[in-house]
Amino acid sequence: MKSAILSVGTELLFGQITNTNTVFLSQQLNLLGFDVMYHYTVGDNPDRLEEMIALAFKDCDLILTTGGLGPTQDDLTKEIACRALDDHMVLHQPSMDKLEQYFKKQNRTMTENNRKQAYMPSRAVVFDNDAGTAPGFALEKDGKQIICMPGPPREMTRMFQRRVLPYLETKSEGTIYYRMIRTFGIGESMLETKLLPLIDGQTDPTLATYAKEGECCLRIASKRETKEEAKEAVDAMLGQVQDIIGEYIYSCDNEELVDVVCAKLMKQGLSISSAESCTGGMFAAALTSVSGISRVFDRSLVTYSNEAKMFELGVKEETLAAHGAVSEETAREMAEGLRRVSGSDICISVTGIAGPDGGTEEKPVGLVYIGACFQGKTTCRKIQMRNVNRSWNRNFAVLSMLDVINRLIEG
Amino acid sequence: MKSAILSVGTELLFGQITNTNTVFLSQQLNLLGFDVMYHYTVGDNPDRLEEMIALAFKDCDLILTTGGLGPTQDDLTKEIACRALDDHMVLHQPSMDKLEQYFKKQNRTMTENNRKQAYMPSRAVVFDNDAGTAPGFALEKDGKQIICMPGPPREMTRMFQRRVLPYLETKSEGTIYYRMIRTFGIGESMLETKLLPLIDGQTDPTLATYAKEGECCLRIASKRETKEEAKEAVDAMLGQVQDIIGEYIYSCDNEELVDVVCAKLMKQGLSISSAESCTGGMFAAALTSVSGISRVFDRSLVTYSNEAKMFELGVKEETLAAHGAVSEETAREMAEGLRRVSGSDICISVTGIAGPDGGTEEKPVGLVYIGACFQGKTTCRKIQMRNVNRSWNRNFAVLSMLDVINRLIEG
Repeated sequence: MKSAILSVGTELLFGQITNTNTVFLSQQLNLLGFDVMYHYTVGDNPDRLEEMIALAFKDCDLILTTGGLGPTQDDLTKEIACRALDDHMVLHQPSMDKLEQYFKKQNRTMTENNRKQAYMPSRAVVFDNDAGTAPGFALEKDGKQIICMPGPPREMTRMFQRRVLPYLETKSEGTIYYRMIRTFGIGESMLETKLLPLIDGQTDPTLATYAKEGECCLRIASKRETKEEAKEAVDAMLGQVQDIIGEYIYSCDNEELVDVVCAKLMKQGLSISSAESCTGGMFAAALTSVSGISRVFDRSLVTYSNEAKMFELGVKEETLAAHGAVSEETAREMAEGLRRVSGSDICISVTGIAGPDGGTEEKPVGLVYIGACFQGKTTCRKIQMRNVNRSWNRNFAVLSMLDVINRLIEG
Repeated sequence: MKSAILSVGTELLFGQITNTNTVFLSQQLNLLGFDVMYHYTVGDNPDRLEEMIALAFKDCDLILTTGGLGPTQDDLTKEIACRALDDHMVLHQPSMDKLEQYFKKQNRTMTENNRKQAYMPSRAVVFDNDAGTAPGFALEKDGKQIICMPGPPREMTRMFQRRVLPYLETKSEGTIYYRMIRTFGIGESMLETKLLPLIDGQTDPTLATYAKEGECCLRIASKRETKEEAKEAVDAMLGQVQDIIGEYIYSCDNEELVDVVCAKLMKQGLSISSAESCTGGMFAAALTSVSGISRVFDRSLVTYSNEAKMFELGVKEETLAAHGAVSEETAREMAEGLRRVSGSDICISVTGIAGPDGGTEEKPVGLVYIGACFQGKTTCRKIQMRNVNRSWNRNFAVLSMLDVINRLIEG
């Protein structure tokens, strides 16, 4: 089935934000076996929107739209889509109830303009929005379908995964099964080089690499008549992949590294604390993004200044003087000091040079030491990462800390 | 002048890569005073490409294309653009010379298909490609213009900045001047409601609202004959906006709240430390994302457990027992304890319920207390935010902390 993706929003045409919705939806549609023929972006202009829908329907049977479902004057996607498929708007009571409840729960007055979010085309299949106020919907006529979703990526992806995907799966021919393999510690071109024997001349299953910030993903996908056949083919190839690059794999089911590590910590009942310098709280922020982590996470001491390292963690003044804040010696003393104050089973520390300033020939930007106390032993990993930029470097340091923990608690 | 951006490339339709070219070009065109009406992405399909060009020219006078200029069979942008503007291809000798030199320098044989990159529409203004092999060009007929550039972002942006931009500057009428106003503490629909008198029936300047996570932006833009006139019009409207919603504005020049606060701290030489619970390190992470912040940022104590609150900050056991970890009393004791250990000029604390679990009727998810010690006084702000999700709630708590500081150090 041929499809098109239509993004509605003037902020996209101004170049204020990057359109991540089309990337996500293109991948999803491809996985379902739909061909994506076009991406369009239009502003908040009803006439152009109507034009685009008509144009897309000339050779596509499915249009996915994002944006233009909100409460403001500019939000007109719903009305235009409705008209394009010869329908009329009616009050969708369940949506109105949800909307009223939502505002009541927050002790907020629902302004009049919000009400229109509860009106739907009369023939629409309505999709609840679990992450916002504007519901989405699917509308069909004479084999032409339009599915309208909210613009904010968080709302759109959740609605897509929970509601639209199951709906679309009933409309696709054949079944696709895929697994997203997550790796850390290997770059995309090296990954592709090592897996070339499997990638070259591939037909089904397909193997594709994707770079993420500081890490790499692998998608293994197969399209067969039944889900079982597709799964079998994918798992067989996964076995081959594991033989080649298994040491870098931390998840075969698209889990984030922080979730894998937190699940292990919680399962094994291991308490954890951290002592951070260059990461400035990002490591603790990552751990505490996981609901329920209070079961095991005790504290993070973000000792940004040398004074704080000495006061909070007992790092010795002589150590700082002799080796500097960014050194194996300091990383070890931070981890051991943390162990003394917190008593946590796992005490991890990090000290490094995030950049852009602060680097020298001896200690360049991207140099990081990660100390760890576990089961009575103190270890230290030294990393010299490539200096991409401050944000990327700090993120990579956090991933490295998670990797250190993941390998420590493996057994 | 109305313009459209057309991206050519099947890899975009597969969702393999994010289209950063359109973001860049949209910003550039807007700054030149051109209105961007559409973004299109098409695959390597000559018929659709021709269709899209014809469609765009219905109401646009300028089309920028990226992609499809390479040596392969699929690269047909040039030929299609040429046809659309009634021209024919000829050998462009300077381009052929450059191409031959390029291959010679690399000790590579130029394959036959590479030659076509040196053929150009006969009336074209040719743009050299300093970062790749495919030159770009501008072609015009009867007031309709098309500018074709390479797909790889690095090649495209370099060609644009060095060659296309000077070319376009001769073609733009009038100048756009705009300011991005950043606000915190007011929602998008309430903002629109309050500014309705200015938004309704607007012509020039224009006023548009954009939602960001936890905050709102306002774009005021004017297009006049000279930059001075446009600036005057924008600043006049900004004055009107400030009269209505000035209390929520933290920047009139598109700065992030964290950057505004950090700049103030560094300028005033005020040291700062934090004591975080529910934000779990996110506040410190935000501050330390700013290069040079070590001048003022001392430490953050992420006291996630009650034990840590008592040990690190001296929060009293009786206080926790009587009022709970999430209370004004605890927030105040965290801030005051932090002041004792760190001595920082500003000591800020936060304790709250990030969710999804942990809420009760009395203390629902989204309840947050922010304590602050400054100039000998301890203050506390209580917030009941709407419960969006854990991540959003934590981010909003961080923004609220920054807002507390921003208002404390205003004078």
